[in-house]
Amino acid sequence: MTSTTSDPQRTGAGPIAPGQFAAAEARTAWRRGTGEVDDATLQRIEKFWRAANYLSVGQIYLLDNPLLRRPLSRDDVKPRLLGHWGTTPGLNFLYAHLNRAVAERQQSTIYVTGPGHGGPGLVASAYLDGTYSEVYSDITEDEEGLRRLFKQFSFPGGIPSHVAPETPGSIHEGGELGYALSHAYGAAFDNPHLLVAAVVGDGEAETGPLATSWHSNKFVNPAQDGMVLPILHLNGYKIANPTVLDRISDGELRDLMVGYGHTPHVFEAGFDDEDDLSIHRRFAVLLDEVLDEIAAIKERAAGGDLTRPMYPMIVFRTPKGWTGPAEIDGKKTTGSWRAHQVPLASARDTPEHLAVLEDWLQSYGPDELFDADGRVDDEIRALAPVGDLRMSANPHANGGLLLRDLRLPDFRDFAQDVPTPASTFAEAPRVLGEYLTEVIRRNPDNFRIFGPDETASNRLQAVYEVTAKQWNADFEGPEVDDHLERAGRVMEMLSEHQCQGWLEGYLLTGRHGLFTSYEAFIHIVDSMFNQHAKWLKVTNHIPWRRPVASLNYLLSSHVWRQDHNGFSHQDPGFIDHVVNKKAEVVRVYLPPDANTLLSTYDHCLRSRQYVNVVVSGKQPAPNFLSMDEAVAHCTRGLGIWEWAGSEAQDEEPDVVLACAGDVPTLEVLAAADILRRELPQLKVRVVNVVDLMRLQDAREHPHGLTDAEFDTIFTADRPIVFAYHGYPWLIHRLTYRRNGHANIHVRGYKEEGTTTTPFDMVMLNDLDRYHLVIDVIDHVHWARASQAGLRQRMVDARIRARQWTREHGEDIPEVRDWVWPDVGDTATEDGGPTQTRTAVADTGGDNE
Amino acid sequence: MTSTTSDPQRTGAGPIAPGQFAAAEARTAWRRGTGEVDDATLQRIEKFWRAANYLSVGQIYLLDNPLLRRPLSRDDVKPRLLGHWGTTPGLNFLYAHLNRAVAERQQSTIYVTGPGHGGPGLVASAYLDGTYSEVYSDITEDEEGLRRLFKQFSFPGGIPSHVAPETPGSIHEGGELGYALSHAYGAAFDNPHLLVAAVVGDGEAETGPLATSWHSNKFVNPAQDGMVLPILHLNGYKIANPTVLDRISDGELRDLMVGYGHTPHVFEAGFDDEDDLSIHRRFAVLLDEVLDEIAAIKERAAGGDLTRPMYPMIVFRTPKGWTGPAEIDGKKTTGSWRAHQVPLASARDTPEHLAVLEDWLQSYGPDELFDADGRVDDEIRALAPVGDLRMSANPHANGGLLLRDLRLPDFRDFAQDVPTPASTFAEAPRVLGEYLTEVIRRNPDNFRIFGPDETASNRLQAVYEVTAKQWNADFEGPEVDDHLERAGRVMEMLSEHQCQGWLEGYLLTGRHGLFTSYEAFIHIVDSMFNQHAKWLKVTNHIPWRRPVASLNYLLSSHVWRQDHNGFSHQDPGFIDHVVNKKAEVVRVYLPPDANTLLSTYDHCLRSRQYVNVVVSGKQPAPNFLSMDEAVAHCTRGLGIWEWAGSEAQDEEPDVVLACAGDVPTLEVLAAADILRRELPQLKVRVVNVVDLMRLQDAREHPHGLTDAEFDTIFTADRPIVFAYHGYPWLIHRLTYRRNGHANIHVRGYKEEGTTTTPFDMVMLNDLDRYHLVIDVIDHVHWARASQAGLRQRMVDARIRARQWTREHGEDIPEVRDWVWPDVGDTATEDGGPTQTRTAVADTGGDNE
Repeated sequence: MTSTTSDPQRTGAGPIAPGQFAAAEARTAWRRGTGEVDDATLQRIEKFWRAANYLSVGQIYLLDNPLLRRPLSRDDVKPRLLGHWGTTPGLNFLYAHLNRAVAERQQSTIYVTGPGHGGPGLVASAYLDGTYSEVYSDITEDEEGLRRLFKQFSFPGGIPSHVAPETPGSIHEGGELGYALSHAYGAAFDNPHLLVAAVVGDGEAETGPLATSWHSNKFVNPAQDGMVLPILHLNGYKIANPTVLDRISDGELRDLMVGYGHTPHVFEAGFDDEDDLSIHRRFAVLLDEVLDEIAAIKERAAGGDLTRPMYPMIVFRTPKGWTGPAEIDGKKTTGSWRAHQVPLASARDTPEHLAVLEDWLQSYGPDELFDADGRVDDEIRALAPVGDLRMSANPHANGGLLLRDLRLPDFRDFAQDVPTPASTFAEAPRVLGEYLTEVIRRNPDNFRIFGPDETASNRLQAVYEVTAKQWNADFEGPEVDDHLERAGRVMEMLSEHQCQGWLEGYLLTGRHGLFTSYEAFIHIVDSMFNQHAKWLKVTNHIPWRRPVASLNYLLSSHVWRQDHNGFSHQDPGFIDHVVNKKAEVVRVYLPPDANTLLSTYDHCLRSRQYVNVVVSGKQPAPNFLSMDEAVAHCTRGLGIWEWAGSEAQDEEPDVVLACAGDVPTLEVLAAADILRRELPQLKVRVVNVVDLMRLQDAREHPHGLTDAEFDTIFTADRPIVFAYHGYPWLIHRLTYRRNGHANIHVRGYKEEGTTTTPFDMVMLNDLDRYHLVIDVIDHVHWARASQAGLRQRMVDARIRARQWTREHGEDIPEVRDWVWPDVGDTATEDGGPTQTRTAVADTGGDNE
Repeated sequence: MTSTTSDPQRTGAGPIAPGQFAAAEARTAWRRGTGEVDDATLQRIEKFWRAANYLSVGQIYLLDNPLLRRPLSRDDVKPRLLGHWGTTPGLNFLYAHLNRAVAERQQSTIYVTGPGHGGPGLVASAYLDGTYSEVYSDITEDEEGLRRLFKQFSFPGGIPSHVAPETPGSIHEGGELGYALSHAYGAAFDNPHLLVAAVVGDGEAETGPLATSWHSNKFVNPAQDGMVLPILHLNGYKIANPTVLDRISDGELRDLMVGYGHTPHVFEAGFDDEDDLSIHRRFAVLLDEVLDEIAAIKERAAGGDLTRPMYPMIVFRTPKGWTGPAEIDGKKTTGSWRAHQVPLASARDTPEHLAVLEDWLQSYGPDELFDADGRVDDEIRALAPVGDLRMSANPHANGGLLLRDLRLPDFRDFAQDVPTPASTFAEAPRVLGEYLTEVIRRNPDNFRIFGPDETASNRLQAVYEVTAKQWNADFEGPEVDDHLERAGRVMEMLSEHQCQGWLEGYLLTGRHGLFTSYEAFIHIVDSMFNQHAKWLKVTNHIPWRRPVASLNYLLSSHVWRQDHNGFSHQDPGFIDHVVNKKAEVVRVYLPPDANTLLSTYDHCLRSRQYVNVVVSGKQPAPNFLSMDEAVAHCTRGLGIWEWAGSEAQDEEPDVVLACAGDVPTLEVLAAADILRRELPQLKVRVVNVVDLMRLQDAREHPHGLTDAEFDTIFTADRPIVFAYHGYPWLIHRLTYRRNGHANIHVRGYKEEGTTTTPFDMVMLNDLDRYHLVIDVIDHVHWARASQAGLRQRMVDARIRARQWTREHGEDIPEVRDWVWPDVGDTATEDGGPTQTRTAVADTGGDNE
């Protein structure tokens, strides 16, 4: 056969016409099988499996002598043996069989490897079908290429030991376990012609996220979405223990799967002397049966029956480390936890151990698998599908190839009218919801909103004008089923893990979306965020991986307004968590009002390869900036609000009042108002920060300011009282090398909170207007010396406000009704689409 | 009846003799029921339920007029209505019925409220059984007490709207959903006479952690542990959506529960006209049946049959907001998501709405529930058990009451011999494991180790000399079941959520334990840590809550040595996450070697009310300090290592080389070695930090140094090159107000890593010895001017080391074999219990 490396059509990295690909995919989707698998095909499957196993063992152990063309010597073996064998042969088995079925049915398929530790297996399969050499041209299809393939694995400067961004065909790292099914379903949504074969490790199956992700099938539309085939890889052992699902009765396991909404098909092999062809025949027949069942579901759906079927799944019970040495040093290895990692960890220490390794490698018959030059045997290659249909080359697994820009409306069309600052009020996410409604209207098949039962609570309910929550469990009727339909752009399940996992799968296969959640509970996915950020960071440096849409968070139930919920719902630390990751992939925005939120989100939806964290409260709050001002402000990322300050032209201010976040902005403006009235001789500069990364040094973050820019805005030597949305230290961290850093005094959340009124909450944390004024007095030398009276009045105002809330259960009127003084009482006269703050305050309509 | 407030025996806060309590608990445990429930009892149940519902609605709505002794006026209603009604009546129903059963059987029982949003219900029940007034003396049992009870709820200065630390009888906050069953099982372990009734919300049931926690039953020893009765509160709705488990077929739900290892008992009520007594009769009979089933399991276990039974559970299907208004403003409310929160959010706006509220409250017949003075009707009080048997007063739910100090061995007995610094090697956690073995031996029933399949991987396997991993799924035999037994002190399930949740439940009920996990994946429980830290912070200020043992983490598979795993397993950010919480509850330790780890852990196991994070690598590493030195060093928390530096007495150093963490300490010592040899004229001070909180200001953390102390150690003006285990910013954050902060140059993890050799890893992040020397040269003015040659040699050394790893796959010998020069080659001559580094390096025995 000809080398595939010269065929650009076959590479996942080459130019691709998404429309053409989709049309080809649709033409052959969901074909039935032929119903028979001949012995020749079974032999090809067997050979592919054998070759993949050989290449896997080779990667783990060999530094040289890749084809065993000479006796194995100690120096051929890597000095440090790092990798995981246990799950690998099972993954290879499944890949080989899927290859057969994909080729026969021409069914576009991707392979999600839950047990991502089995990295060598996926690399092996991608090498066998030719993809690997296409994307990595130095890993050639000959003996030297094999040597490089082996050496690079889990080796300094080489590739990771897990399935990783470096692995062609993967959208799933699998180092941190639990997300295989969520990723698989995310990939399947809106890909009606795609089959996602998702291998679930039985260790992984013990994690919480995986345990609930089986229920994803209640959120699938069988017509518009693709199909997920879960395969439970029940090999029985983890690092040092059996797995729970392997040690319950067959009946319980079957019931569990039925309870999850699946029809289980149980396959067991490798525990007796059954010959390989017989095993392969049984599995091929079973796989055909399952794929035909899926095809039947698709047919019924195409015929209009969208009710949730019982989806098939496979229980794949095989020995851990299957085909490896049965025993090592007299201890059972294959079929035990001892096969989890490197079963023969001492291959270099004695000739006997070296012989075990050599026998093991020879058991796969490498001479039958590769020709004299080391090229993969034609029969093996012939098993796999060709071109984009190879699971390692399927464009869905390199989503940037298929990514289409969103058709975005002009966000300016949704602007809030702001005749003068803080004269109108809005719930910013509600306004964003109107914009997103139009986004959904224009992008009916590649944009989704994910959230744990909180889309309306987070004020995006306008989107229900054009879409619904997708749901495919039972319905009860419109009286109680609120915007619930079998197809819709909003995905709600009460699991942050599911929302994040679905969205990741959706993005990595080339689509767009956002995740709206409570700020405190987004910590639930801290670890998933880590993995996604790492994925993006690594893919930025892999040329054949194309950029994907950013992962956008909207955290609108934030720390400062947890009226129904209190202390357990207060935590602004996700931002701190996020900024630990590489600057090249994270962005944090704190738009202070509705227009800045619109501008920010437009930017986020156009961006690529970032994680964008946007925090914007859902409670009624003043609009500060007109749309033109908002665009300018967001473009700068931060700026001086001259209208709010009291500095004269050509003069340095006495003090800078800085703010980041909506609630801090309100308090800073109220403090500035007090200072204008009470201390008119004080020159106050008000600075607002939208893009938090602007505070960092330009050398540390691409959005960072130079020191000169920073000094121009914040001054080099004046006191800066900084009211910040989150934990105060982050501001210090971002600015600690700035000239004025010793003058920065930050007020933020200090883990003091309980159920209170809004102002009581900011008072508890010393972020309130009165305290900010006190801070200013304390830090401006001449004011400190002369303003004891004003300071005392501020202390009294706090005490009065506190007493009021304790008695009345709501904020003191002077706070509740405060508006920016330039505009007097117009707030309550505004009868436009935006509710005034007072009108909304009493409704208690704040869900959850 | 007499007031219970005067009876100190009855209060959970009073003095308690744990032994006496345990004996009483054992005497009556697992009695069978009488088999009949008479109408009088049913009426008492009905009345208790009615009263609890009344008190719940009262808390949500009323500011005054608590007994409706005058017509309800607008001013009687709170201006801000905050709370959750939907789940509350169901919780009250279950509580009432359990009261009956607990009293009849004298069965020690605690109640875990998964749907913790139903806070008013638990407060109501605690008030009805008298506990509430006992622990909060101003909430008296009269009309004024009721007024205060109502007003305080979700009110500034009052109590949170959720079940919370303030709620008597609770060990579970329930604001963040998903941990009810994990907490329940944690409470049940080693409490053989305790029943834990665990209500699981059907919203909560969608979360990952809850979905896997059903499998906890495979880890229960039916003789030595208590019994958990899960009750799935299937009321069908979340904030805005139906729940998944309510919208699958009855058969699927039943199969799911069987698959989870339970015998489901389905109860349904509230959807038709069945009268209340009939409903109560049906449930009482069902509850008796279930409790008898549990008693039978206990009897079988007592008779020696420890095999896992199918444990009963109850599916409790009732309308959301049961007994509330059927419709409000023409929209179905009860039995829909609209009942989730405050169903009548507008009670103050119109007379009609006010009348709805008044009718609703009157529907419970308050005049029958309270006497003329507002005291709870005797019949209601008579339903509940008395004293410690009241679920709100059960001492297990205020674990500090039952807490016994651990019997700890002298950790010095496990000391590593350190004749001179860095002359012997150890895997520090392995040494700790020997100490823990003795801890387990001496504390066979109140100390457990929790971990996700990693106890041995994390090197604590010595404990298996005296205990095993507790497991009660199927066994296969010793060939493959490694230290797996039906009873054991080690709890391993591949779910960090389960480990954390179990441990929290175990600690909050008055026991001790630790959680060992991979550093990167401990982020999986970031959010659970948040909630536990908040719980501790709040309980510190609740006098009747007694201190519990600290939650101890051991993170020994840390960022710097993820040899098998690579980038996905590298994240040291948990420390950053932890230090965001209140200083009064968090501690972070980075012991540099085995002896300091022993000393640190002894301290942790004696401490109370903290979260202790201990990071200590599991790879062979040098021992630096003898035990006496280690104790002194750990007591100080940080200190100068004079033997490692090169400063002369009475002279300030030219530079401070500081380190925190084992790998950074090794690199700093190697750098100090180079500097002594290459630049003997340079006066280097070496400082090691064990207790990270020492770096903070004394005003911010109780462990913090004063500025004078800090300057004495770190100098006020000399350059400090600080090699730190984690993200470098944390060191800046902790020290940003110190005099010398502008001189601190931190090297730490910068999110650059992949699968490499150990030294390649530290080089990637510029934390290696050569780079530290370069840093020193760059920051010491005269060295910078004169040491271009040395600097160049360091650059070359790095290049050489990198090239070596790329070629050989292991570290360059000059690095691999480096030892502290004072001791030459004694490392390899040490034949004691500690393996030398070289001997261990090649085994690849690093699991997972």
